[in-house]
Amino acid sequence: MSLSNIEIAQGAQMRPIGEIAGSLGIPADSLEPYGRFKAKIALPYVASLRDRPQGKLILMTAISPTPAGEGKTTTTVGLGDALTRIGEKAMICLREPALGPVFGMKGGAAGGGYAQVVPMEDINLHFTGDFAAIEAATNLLAALIDNHITHGNALDIDARRVTWRRVLDVNDRSLRDVVIGLGGLGNGNPRETGFDIVVASEVMAIFCLATSIADLRERLGDIVVAYTRGRMPVRARDLNAHGAMTAVLRDALAPNLVQTLENTPAFVHGGPFANIAHGCSSVVATSTALHLADYVVTEAGFGADLGAEKFVDILCRTTGLRPSAAVIVATVRALKFHGGVEVADLQAADVAALERGMANLRRHVKTVTQTWGIPAVVAINHRAEDTDAEIAALIAGVEQAGAKAIVAKHYAEGSAGAEELAREVVRLCGEPSELQFTYPDESGLWDKMKAIATRIFGASDIIASTAVRTQIRRLQEEGYGEYPVCVAKTQYSFSTDPKLRGAPRDHVVDIREVRLAAGARFIVMICGDIMTMPGLPASPAANAIDVDDDGRITGLF
Amino acid sequence: MSLSNIEIAQGAQMRPIGEIAGSLGIPADSLEPYGRFKAKIALPYVASLRDRPQGKLILMTAISPTPAGEGKTTTTVGLGDALTRIGEKAMICLREPALGPVFGMKGGAAGGGYAQVVPMEDINLHFTGDFAAIEAATNLLAALIDNHITHGNALDIDARRVTWRRVLDVNDRSLRDVVIGLGGLGNGNPRETGFDIVVASEVMAIFCLATSIADLRERLGDIVVAYTRGRMPVRARDLNAHGAMTAVLRDALAPNLVQTLENTPAFVHGGPFANIAHGCSSVVATSTALHLADYVVTEAGFGADLGAEKFVDILCRTTGLRPSAAVIVATVRALKFHGGVEVADLQAADVAALERGMANLRRHVKTVTQTWGIPAVVAINHRAEDTDAEIAALIAGVEQAGAKAIVAKHYAEGSAGAEELAREVVRLCGEPSELQFTYPDESGLWDKMKAIATRIFGASDIIASTAVRTQIRRLQEEGYGEYPVCVAKTQYSFSTDPKLRGAPRDHVVDIREVRLAAGARFIVMICGDIMTMPGLPASPAANAIDVDDDGRITGLF
Repeated sequence: MSLSNIEIAQGAQMRPIGEIAGSLGIPADSLEPYGRFKAKIALPYVASLRDRPQGKLILMTAISPTPAGEGKTTTTVGLGDALTRIGEKAMICLREPALGPVFGMKGGAAGGGYAQVVPMEDINLHFTGDFAAIEAATNLLAALIDNHITHGNALDIDARRVTWRRVLDVNDRSLRDVVIGLGGLGNGNPRETGFDIVVASEVMAIFCLATSIADLRERLGDIVVAYTRGRMPVRARDLNAHGAMTAVLRDALAPNLVQTLENTPAFVHGGPFANIAHGCSSVVATSTALHLADYVVTEAGFGADLGAEKFVDILCRTTGLRPSAAVIVATVRALKFHGGVEVADLQAADVAALERGMANLRRHVKTVTQTWGIPAVVAINHRAEDTDAEIAALIAGVEQAGAKAIVAKHYAEGSAGAEELAREVVRLCGEPSELQFTYPDESGLWDKMKAIATRIFGASDIIASTAVRTQIRRLQEEGYGEYPVCVAKTQYSFSTDPKLRGAPRDHVVDIREVRLAAGARFIVMICGDIMTMPGLPASPAANAIDVDDDGRITGLF
Repeated sequence: MSLSNIEIAQGAQMRPIGEIAGSLGIPADSLEPYGRFKAKIALPYVASLRDRPQGKLILMTAISPTPAGEGKTTTTVGLGDALTRIGEKAMICLREPALGPVFGMKGGAAGGGYAQVVPMEDINLHFTGDFAAIEAATNLLAALIDNHITHGNALDIDARRVTWRRVLDVNDRSLRDVVIGLGGLGNGNPRETGFDIVVASEVMAIFCLATSIADLRERLGDIVVAYTRGRMPVRARDLNAHGAMTAVLRDALAPNLVQTLENTPAFVHGGPFANIAHGCSSVVATSTALHLADYVVTEAGFGADLGAEKFVDILCRTTGLRPSAAVIVATVRALKFHGGVEVADLQAADVAALERGMANLRRHVKTVTQTWGIPAVVAINHRAEDTDAEIAALIAGVEQAGAKAIVAKHYAEGSAGAEELAREVVRLCGEPSELQFTYPDESGLWDKMKAIATRIFGASDIIASTAVRTQIRRLQEEGYGEYPVCVAKTQYSFSTDPKLRGAPRDHVVDIREVRLAAGARFIVMICGDIMTMPGLPASPAANAIDVDDDGRITGLF
């Protein structure tokens, strides 16, 4: 009988975190330990690395997500371990799991099988408190807004135009739309608002894009939280909130060091949504890792059309970071789903369905290699039930798209299963490449959105209501035209309809809503329905989670 | 010019936390460091101490709080340091500061002047994440309740009788009364509810009373969260929530070790409100400290009528812990306020007002020494503006109550200023004493409340509406009569009217509401208005808090 993720993780031979840090050359006095197997790297040390040469950055992305699972985090860990195995100095950078989904449907997010980061329970539950700090900073700002309105409203905030929402790290659909300030005069002013999950907060996006405490503070001050009755923006700075918010976030900004099951060093830091935010772990962590290792593998959220697009057009564009190679994760199972097979039937071999589903993978491959010019390889995250015929069809299908596909068995075998993938990645990193953005900086906001929709999503056009068009024009006029666009749409399809699997084309993308993220410095364009506060399923994962008399956590997956 | 609290704290000569732990005999492998100056003590080690002899427990309490400030935490630190100074093996146990008040009116809560626990910024901001864990566990349970109702409501929960509220660690009056579940079918069922501050959560009370992970789990399962349409209680256990809640809280239950400015070891762990909860730091921390040191100073919240009463009648009663001595903190300034002087005029010497205000102190002294039989001393927390005449009057006034008052100058002088207090406390600990409770276990709930009101508050009687009387009778019939009573009322007066300073007597206490805390195992009786979610003032402390370019936090007080 095979072991569960948590059983494998609890059996890990972890090295003390000081040894892991030592292997990277980090001095002991720059380490802030959190228990014996987690540590933060002090920011002054991080700053001291600035002039060191940088290693090669490898972007882990994937096909459009399916309920069948793709294993992007697992493959990031597997590749990192395999790079170490073949003698390279490697690190990985991952996003921190959100607590809410751990108790909902998704479960943990620290990899799986023999490709995990550990201590798995800690990483999935609170970890070093970063998300709690982001939550506290977000909610402090919210309280300061309503408090300002209560105490005289000197800034003339229009209570109906407060855009700042509160956040919690829990899946709680009841909090999506609420009325606050009820109960009479002493409780403030009643108004409609809502709660998002922490990963959807602009503070999370800012946290992950900030390059220093000073940059963090500046960006927090820039956040537009509301508009006055005269429609002028009100910023966090106007409420004098940004200093206290920075104080709340100060310790959190230092990157968190842990290790994989095979003791490869890993930064797990930050974790913004890949729709309403940019979906990549913190710039501080990635930059630091690049100064410490020769190869750094980092993942972007969701499929390449959402997470990698934002990695390229938001993160790389604004930070100067450049990936030397990309890995696009796919599974036989998920491609069959894209080919029209329902979840219950995925166990059965079905080459024809897989070939239909390949359209999804091929479009992502084309985007990564041709649109952005990043040398890429497809990683087939292997599962025991995959047949030889399916694997052969997958490899052949990828070849048609001008790329190579490699079977990786890290889930079952650890690093040994991903050696070939690691060697190919090293080879790709040696190839010359120049990153091309999806659109130039100087393009207008409308044209930026159109470029993403037509070049990445395969759409024929974009549309919007008059109100949205006016809003976009206004943002352009107000000088926000230089910001990149952050598309919030379903992750399950290239279109805005989550049911359209495969590679729909010539669809039309409807921009339903536009939001200014003045601290994160991008314009969110919401297309179709997106969910910023998940709900719990009928049988939440929480029901199975427990602690035994020895204090061991069980049922976490 | 004198230094601010944070300036003094940032100049502290802290010893590495491993050395502090070592001085207590705690082995390195039982220490979970959080940075270099904070650590959690592993629970298996805590459990291994069970059969060791215990030191003497000293309860720090105070007169009824005033806006003038009394300095209970400061005196706890000063006494701990002074005990160390005179050669005793001493520890202190404090409550963790809540984040909300740090940004509101109260500021930090890690002591003051030359009597502080450090690292002060860390302790005031997040610390080791315990409150975030308590918040997450509370809100997870709330989400599971609403989710259960959404997904078929098999338990037949009456949505109007959900008593469980969500919590946040922020002062946010807008969240006191809210309507959730708006926005249509997908967002659940609209209903009225509200948010409390984390310290008011029953999970916080449970956390601080639990003696082990197993006890914590059992108590969490016992929480009554709602009633069915047939008025039967619904427990966290019925929702299968308690295992996951325990997992969320597992790491937090280990006590947090820090140090004072003078390197005396300090546990800072848990922090329940002293009205709606019992107001003492965790039993795990206090018990552990008693196994590690010869003298342990711990504080109870608010004045002796609220915090110390609960320490005696809830904590001591249910755990078997017994204080060997008590210290009752008073200031000249606060006593003048109790004597009728307004805050703006407190700077001026006023012996007559002080003598009037002494009534408050004398009643607390009588309660502690006569009602409960705890040997006690009054600590006059000295301020520079106190006149000799005022001090003399204070000392004489305490003598009339049969006790001794000692001037303590730890705020300005550190341990040297509290030596005399420390020697007196050691002497008192040598006196024979036997703790008397305010009421016997077997007394009915109504009579327990009446005993507290008449014996401690100086009331002539208690009253309640028919509905409340029915509820009390019902709880009695359902078998909860054996629980102690936890009185929630204003901390500013012996009466339920916060404006009645001094020592009002023959007032009548109106029980406005009764709540079952089945996991904490007490019955909350709410008398008068109490606030479980504070608001921010017109100029919140947050406005002054900032971080400079070197990452140093400023403006925290």
